[in-house]
Order: sequence, then structure tokens, then C-alpha cells
Amino acid sequence: MVETIPPRSGAGFRLPKGAELTVIDPQGCQVSDLLAFNADDLREVISSGRTLDYASRLYLTTGDPLYSNRSNVMLSILEDTVGRHDFLLTPCSKDTFRIIYGDTDPHRGCFGNLAAALQPYGVEPDMIPTAFNCFMNVPIDGATGTFTVEPPLSKAGDFIRFRAEMDLVIGLTACSALQSNGGSFKPIQYRIDAGPAA
Amino acid sequence: MVETIPPRSGAGFRLPKGAELTVIDPQGCQVSDLLAFNADDLREVISSGRTLDYASRLYLTTGDPLYSNRSNVMLSILEDTVGRHDFLLTPCSKDTFRIIYGDTDPHRGCFGNLAAALQPYGVEPDMIPTAFNCFMNVPIDGATGTFTVEPPLSKAGDFIRFRAEMDLVIGLTACSALQSNGGSFKPIQYRIDAGPAA
Repeated sequence: MVETIPPRSGAGFRLPKGAELTVIDPQGCQVSDLLAFNADDLREVISSGRTLDYASRLYLTTGDPLYSNRSNVMLSILEDTVGRHDFLLTPCSKDTFRIIYGDTDPHRGCFGNLAAALQPYGVEPDMIPTAFNCFMNVPIDGATGTFTVEPPLSKAGDFIRFRAEMDLVIGLTACSALQSNGGSFKPIQYRIDAGPAA
Repeated sequence: MVETIPPRSGAGFRLPKGAELTVIDPQGCQVSDLLAFNADDLREVISSGRTLDYASRLYLTTGDPLYSNRSNVMLSILEDTVGRHDFLLTPCSKDTFRIIYGDTDPHRGCFGNLAAALQPYGVEPDMIPTAFNCFMNVPIDGATGTFTVEPPLSKAGDFIRFRAEMDLVIGLTACSALQSNGGSFKPIQYRIDAGPAA
């Protein structure tokens, strides 16, 4: 069954080991921040720094594992119809909108949405690390190290599919930042499949 | 007074608000992983994702602030004689040496050294995020997103100087990974100065 995350909101759910999570961009050009915690010990959490270090590559796609802070594989990317995602930047937050956009009454952003969606699972805001930002397009100038946030390359119906490599608590958003999604707020969809019997 | 961190080891210490920390590469071509925690609430910690997001740049230098996970400035870079540091990769660890180097009896690395040095301050290993890696040289191919770890550009006596913008607990290493420091293990030095009177 396909679930829909409304624009500028988030969802939290359990994803058992072996299950597959498909994150779908139903209208195209939208970003979804993904967090993963070990369901049995929330102190183990998805780690951008570990994952990038082992991949020696900023842009991850089919076949790449996403590691935890304890260097265990949490998720594997099984299929990816886009091929461009971000794993550098933290979820947009009240502070993002204040500092980058100059908003005086800032939205709580993906950070606030993730914090709210994960609170029932025992995740506190300070435990939220850099997310794996599905479909987020952050090209980098290798010479200077400067980067920009550009509209996603995803088209309507594009998706990325993961397999859980341990029992997980997942946080997932339909991104709240105009810069990330080409200037309009759109929903995100996801589907959980049991995966092949072991 | 200049303190010396022996090769492949680490140090932990308090750095009060307003004080200045100078990290020195005494022999050249060595890396030092730097961590910062809010001394009054260790859940507030240096954040690569927040800092890079606000800087829109991977390579930080003089004038750049280092943000916490709560989007507060923890440290400001006051002076930098090298201009190339890394803020992408986690401290090298037992797992780094196992996964990247294939070591069968791996060293505990900067991660283990930081965990040991920070344990007296109440920092647990799972609380260690991506460090600011002084002098670490990670050039990136913007087209593919691939990167390599190259010898540091620092020469003997080069340094980077920070100001604490809040009361901090600092972790600092002389890096343990051959790849990071051009193939030999060397010490790191540091100095704490009171900073100008407020």
C-alpha cells in the first residue's frame, strides 16, 4: 500500500530487517529527508561521515550501503531511478529558514517534522543527524568546494528503493525548503514491502 | 604553553568561552581531528551538516563559524595558514582500518582516542559525530562526486586558530590513519590562550 506524506510534513515508522522501503516522488522535483535509527538501540544512527568515508564518493546510488555511526550497514540501496541524492546537509529547520532565507516566523522544517514524527519512538531532537536526502541535488565545484542546492532531477514517479539490514525506526519527510524542491511544496509517497522470504 | 599530542593519540580538555585554541602541525603533513561539545549540555555538539549548509562551501577557513547541531556557533576560525581542512569524514576507527585498510588487528584510531580522551567529561562513543579534521586534504571531483584522501598541504609550523564562542569540551587528535597524513605518524601540538579581555 502506498502512503502519502503531505507537503511540508513528515512520517515515522518501523521498518523490520529484510523489508524494503520505496520512496517515491509522485509529482517530480521534490526532496525527502530520510533518517534511520536502530530500533533496538536508538543511539545507533545513520551516519553521513561513515558512509561517505567508506564509499569515497559523495553521490550514492544502486548498490551502495548506508552505514551507522557504529559502522554497521543499516540500509542498502537496491534500485534508484534518479541517481542524484544528497548526504551532506542537515534537515532544514527553523534555523535554516532564519539563517538562509531570513524568515522572521520560520517553519519548523524537515527537522521539526522529523522530531515530531520520531518523538513517539523515543528519538529526541538532539539525536537527529545529517539525513540521507533522497532526490536532493547539490552539485559541487571541485576546485573551490562551493556548492548550490538545485532543483531535483527526479521526474514524476521516480523512486529509490532500500532494504533494511537491521530492525529500524525510519523518519521520512516531504521537504519544506523551497530551494530544495525547485520552488513549490509537494507530497512524497512511500511503500513498504516485506521483501523476499529469507 | 604548547602541549604535544603524541603520534596516534588524543587529548580532551575544556576551552572556556572567549579562549583561543591554536592547533599546530609541528612537522607538517599531519592531520588533527577536532570535536567540540557544549560544556553545559553535551547533547549540543559540532555539526558538519549544519556548518556546511550555512557556508555553502565544503572547505572552511579564516572567518568561518563552526555550528552545533542546534545551529549555535561553537567555534570561529580566526586564522589559518593552510586553507585546506576536511569536514566530511568521521574520525578513523577500528572499523575504518578494517574496512578501508583491511587490517586484521586494527588500531582504535582517532575515534578510539577521542572516546578515551573525552570519557572523563561524560562523552560516550555514540555521541561522537563527524569531526572537523584540521589539515586533512580531501579533494573532490565535482563531476562524479568521488574524492580521495591526499597528504595535507600543511608545512612544519602551520596552524589554525579558533575562538570558543561558548564554554566547550574539546577533543583533539594526532591522526592515526596513514592515508590522511602522507604515510607517517606524527605529533600535533596545541596552545590555549585566554583571548582578549571582554
